[in-house]
Amino acid sequence: MNNVIVKGFKTAGIISGVDPKNKKDLGLIYSEVPAEAAAVFTKNKVKAAPIIINQDRIKSGKCQAIIVNSGNANCCTGEKGIEDARAMTGYVAGETGIPEGLILVASTGVIGKPLELDKIESAVPELVRAAVPEGIDDLAEAIMTTDTVPKIVSIQGEINGQTYTVAGIAKGSGMIRPNMATMLCFVMTDLKTFSDFLQHSLLHSTQRSFNRITVDGDTSTNDMVAIMANGMAGVELKDAEHKKRFQNILDEVLIELSKMIVKDGEGATKFVEISVKGAMTNKDAEKIADTVANSNLVKTALFGEDANWGRILAAAGRAGVMVEPDQMDVFFDQVRMVKDGTGCGMDAEKKATVVIKKKEFTILVDLKMGGGSASMFTCDISLDYVKINADYRT
Amino acid sequence: MNNVIVKGFKTAGIISGVDPKNKKDLGLIYSEVPAEAAAVFTKNKVKAAPIIINQDRIKSGKCQAIIVNSGNANCCTGEKGIEDARAMTGYVAGETGIPEGLILVASTGVIGKPLELDKIESAVPELVRAAVPEGIDDLAEAIMTTDTVPKIVSIQGEINGQTYTVAGIAKGSGMIRPNMATMLCFVMTDLKTFSDFLQHSLLHSTQRSFNRITVDGDTSTNDMVAIMANGMAGVELKDAEHKKRFQNILDEVLIELSKMIVKDGEGATKFVEISVKGAMTNKDAEKIADTVANSNLVKTALFGEDANWGRILAAAGRAGVMVEPDQMDVFFDQVRMVKDGTGCGMDAEKKATVVIKKKEFTILVDLKMGGGSASMFTCDISLDYVKINADYRT
Repeated sequence: MNNVIVKGFKTAGIISGVDPKNKKDLGLIYSEVPAEAAAVFTKNKVKAAPIIINQDRIKSGKCQAIIVNSGNANCCTGEKGIEDARAMTGYVAGETGIPEGLILVASTGVIGKPLELDKIESAVPELVRAAVPEGIDDLAEAIMTTDTVPKIVSIQGEINGQTYTVAGIAKGSGMIRPNMATMLCFVMTDLKTFSDFLQHSLLHSTQRSFNRITVDGDTSTNDMVAIMANGMAGVELKDAEHKKRFQNILDEVLIELSKMIVKDGEGATKFVEISVKGAMTNKDAEKIADTVANSNLVKTALFGEDANWGRILAAAGRAGVMVEPDQMDVFFDQVRMVKDGTGCGMDAEKKATVVIKKKEFTILVDLKMGGGSASMFTCDISLDYVKINADYRT
Repeated sequence: MNNVIVKGFKTAGIISGVDPKNKKDLGLIYSEVPAEAAAVFTKNKVKAAPIIINQDRIKSGKCQAIIVNSGNANCCTGEKGIEDARAMTGYVAGETGIPEGLILVASTGVIGKPLELDKIESAVPELVRAAVPEGIDDLAEAIMTTDTVPKIVSIQGEINGQTYTVAGIAKGSGMIRPNMATMLCFVMTDLKTFSDFLQHSLLHSTQRSFNRITVDGDTSTNDMVAIMANGMAGVELKDAEHKKRFQNILDEVLIELSKMIVKDGEGATKFVEISVKGAMTNKDAEKIADTVANSNLVKTALFGEDANWGRILAAAGRAGVMVEPDQMDVFFDQVRMVKDGTGCGMDAEKKATVVIKKKEFTILVDLKMGGGSASMFTCDISLDYVKINADYRT
């Protein structure tokens, strides 16, 4: 139990039967009053039905409720899928009196299977009744698919002695790649502020968090990060200093959630930061970090606890940006394994072997060419990753 | 035994001890007379020492011998690595009298380990003595690393009643991606022709073969395809019709070799052609085929024999090109699983399940937008892929 409460929000998670595993699979967030809201969506050209509806509705900058199901992504389901997603918000509207236009919808799970809408329709009355201020644990559970742990992060801020809360819940464990992941994230805050600021702020935090993680290089059709601010804490975000502090809090909430997603990566046994510095530009550094973090050969070596720096250099070399192979350095935590493109020998290998046996560490690639830097969070590819993904639908 | 003989060429493969597995690890090709030659090299910015030397030497358009070792890639080995690669060609020059500038060198294996040059030096006299017209099987074995089968393809052509041979040998099994792969390929022909034509011809065939295969999305530092034409068949390639026929033969040799590489992909159990048509341009089609063929989620689903078309659409959607999700079709061989972006139901699923249990089949994505098409050869990611690559250095 996290006992996280954000003033004026109620949440719930129940079993509707849509997920054949008979786990909690239907969740609800709602605010007692309409909230200012913003959202960021997947860049995949194939978008699930809920995304299409939300992209339209979020334009108003307002939201009062979000209904979400797991077990079925409602994606590649045609016109019927769109109708089904809209119907989900209709059931919540009917049960709560909230205008349908203020309700968003999210789905996660198998692609291409028609939604069993009748199960959701039957479950919504119970879902609405179940919603309570302390329902966030149930909600976090209801959005899990291959996740092994629920993901909740809550941080409090203060303005002139008044406390406010920023609480985020997320799901995601595979199909994770920058711009975004099979991940859903919902953030609630009881601050008073405006949707324009929220949109700007959410984009900033997403860049620093969900767009810096990778599990397997795949980007989902259903990704969505949404934030609602209902003002019920009775404190308004006004001056620049407080806005900056709020931004830091939101950054931290999303970064923590994104780290939790990588650590919970399907079958993952290692959590590794790939840090690149000395690139010509930040963009170059990002490309290299992304290529190294997504290399199957690097990721299987991590699983094998083999400090195979040759694969790191080879990945950096194919990132599509200028590098000077003869001046690259590679560190495993503090251990320099490569100096000027050449291995540092048996002593370094031995020390690196200690680092790579840890569950968390950093691989630093220093190009020594310029001031560009970037970092990514990644995990290993394990035997369990293959097992989980070979059997997902069956 | 393939009993492939190309007039005027001798080949050998012996044990030098560089590969700790105590297998054949040192190979030689040489021609009785200097041959016209051409080569294509890895586009990885991190290039192994042999590549750096070859890029310079091939400018002459001539080559008379190639020495190659497995067990050590001689990559990221600094100035010493370059000296070592040059020394390898020096030993062959000393033993055969061939000018060093006409000798190329290739290495494949672990990156970042200094070459045990003394072992190669000691072995070269025996290597040269071992070279015989029918030595191609030994050579093919000597260049294998994680390969489980040697790869040799030989086709004969005819000009005015005179026969000529085009024989290629290749290695490669992981770290395979377009532009190229951890792969080496050496082609010998006894035709008479010129290096300019060979270069053009080799590029053409490489585009249609090695640049269309993927095992795991990684590109190596050591990739090289070289061709030598020594004219010993006593027949010259002159008119356009014969050049076209030769091009077809070279295409076929390299396509067959590249298919053999994918089938021998580390741990692979399936060989799958990803075919894309109806894209706006061929370039768009290539990007989609490449993204689908490299998706870990698609590849693990193939291993699990799960016709998970949702992952195929999702991969197509993140390829970075325009697609119309609502009009995409997907076929597994002849079975249409997706029509206009929506699944074709249980009957199609059942039929596709039969297709996906085969060892070889085609997945076709039809975008119905334009005339662009492309295809790629890929394999699944299996438990063995992870095992092989987790343990490669140890």
